[in-house]
Amino acid sequence: MLHLILADSELETIPSELWTHPSVIKDAKRRGKKAKNILLDSTYHHSAIRKFFPGEENRRGRPDIVHYFLLNTLESYLNRKHLLRVYVHTRNDEVIFINPETRIPKSYNRFVGLIESLFLNQYVPDKERPLLWMKKMALKDLVSSLKTDNVFLLTEKGKNAKIEQFLNLDDQVFIIGGFPSGDFISRTDFVKESISIFNETMLAWVVAYEIIVRYEIVNKIF
Amino acid sequence: MLHLILADSELETIPSELWTHPSVIKDAKRRGKKAKNILLDSTYHHSAIRKFFPGEENRRGRPDIVHYFLLNTLESYLNRKHLLRVYVHTRNDEVIFINPETRIPKSYNRFVGLIESLFLNQYVPDKERPLLWMKKMALKDLVSSLKTDNVFLLTEKGKNAKIEQFLNLDDQVFIIGGFPSGDFISRTDFVKESISIFNETMLAWVVAYEIIVRYEIVNKIF
Repeated sequence: MLHLILADSELETIPSELWTHPSVIKDAKRRGKKAKNILLDSTYHHSAIRKFFPGEENRRGRPDIVHYFLLNTLESYLNRKHLLRVYVHTRNDEVIFINPETRIPKSYNRFVGLIESLFLNQYVPDKERPLLWMKKMALKDLVSSLKTDNVFLLTEKGKNAKIEQFLNLDDQVFIIGGFPSGDFISRTDFVKESISIFNETMLAWVVAYEIIVRYEIVNKIF
Repeated sequence: MLHLILADSELETIPSELWTHPSVIKDAKRRGKKAKNILLDSTYHHSAIRKFFPGEENRRGRPDIVHYFLLNTLESYLNRKHLLRVYVHTRNDEVIFINPETRIPKSYNRFVGLIESLFLNQYVPDKERPLLWMKKMALKDLVSSLKTDNVFLLTEKGKNAKIEQFLNLDDQVFIIGGFPSGDFISRTDFVKESISIFNETMLAWVVAYEIIVRYEIVNKIF
C-alpha cells in the first residue's frame, strides 16, 4: 500500500484578522457566506494576506494545490486498484481523511464549497458514512498512526535519490509539501530519510503522479 | 520528442442558441462580459445545454479538462527538459498551439479568462511572441503537420497494448480524447494504431501523466 501525505497544505478558512478587509467582505457577499466560513484563496485575497501577514502572500491560501493533488491521486489507476491512500494535512495541524472511493468535484468552485462544508462540520456528506472527515492532528501523529518505518520526506534539501529504490517496500509513506514555496512548518525529524528526486522544485501534484506511476511499474500493477 | 494532442476537446464559446437562456444571461452579467465571449461551462450552463442540445449535457462545456491536462503536461519534468509538445484541438476544429515555456494560470477562473481572450484575439498575450495561439484546423491536418507516421489513438475501443512498446520511437504522437464520455467526433482513420492501455475509461489528464512518466523512464530522462 502506498500512502501519500500532502503536508502543511495551505488550506484554511479566512483568519479573523482579515474579516474586515474589503476584498474579503466583497467575496463573502458575492458568495452569500460569512467570512469565517470561506476558504482563504490567494486568487481573491492576495492583497489582504500581504497586508496582515506580510511575506506570506505568495504562500498562503492555496486550495488549488489540494484540489489538483486529489484529482491526480484519487483518479489514478493505482487508487482504482485499492493500493493507494491519500491524506491532506494542513498548516494548522488538521488532517483530512479521504475514503478512496470519493469522486472529488472536477469544478474548482464546487470543490471549495465541499471543503468549506468540511471545515464547518468536520465531515461530508454525512457522519455515519463520511467520504471526507477531519481531525485535529499533527503530521507526526498522522505518520505514527500508519504504523510503518518507511517514511520518506520529499524535499529539495534531501539527499539525491532515485525514487524507484523506495517503491518495492511493503508499506511506505511519502510526504509531499502542500505549499507553493518555502519550507515545511511541521516537525519532520521523525522520517526515515529526506530525499530529493528532482534537481529542482516541482509542483506537488506532479511529484504525486511521478511517484504513483513509478509505484505501478515497480510493483507490476500496470 | 513526445507530442500529446488533446483532441475534440469540449472547449467553445457559448453557442448562439444559448445566449438568451437565463443561466447564460446571469453568468454574463456576473462576469461583465458578452455571452458570445464566454466559455461554455457545464458547471454553470448544464440546464441550458440540456435544453438546446439534449443528450449533450454530460459532454459539452468542459474547459476544466483542458486546464488539468495543461497543468499536468506543461509542469512535467519532461516538458522542462524540452522533450514535450502539447496541442489542444477542439470540437469545432480549432487548434491551440502552446509555447512549451508557458506557465498556465493555476486558478481555474484566470485560466478561463485567458482562453476567452484567446478565442477573441486568436493569440495571447501578444501577436509577435504569443504563448498561446489558435488556428482553424482539423485534427488530421494537425497530425500531418507533425511529419511522423508514429501516430497512436488512445481509445477503449483500440486493441489492448502496453504503452511502453510505443515510447522508444524517435518522434511519436498520442491522441487523447478531451471529452468526458462518448466517442471522437473527428475522423481518426489516419492513425497508425488505435490502442487501449487501460481496461477502463480514464480521465484525459491521468492518461497524459501515465504516458509522460513512462516516456521519461523508457528514454532514461528521469
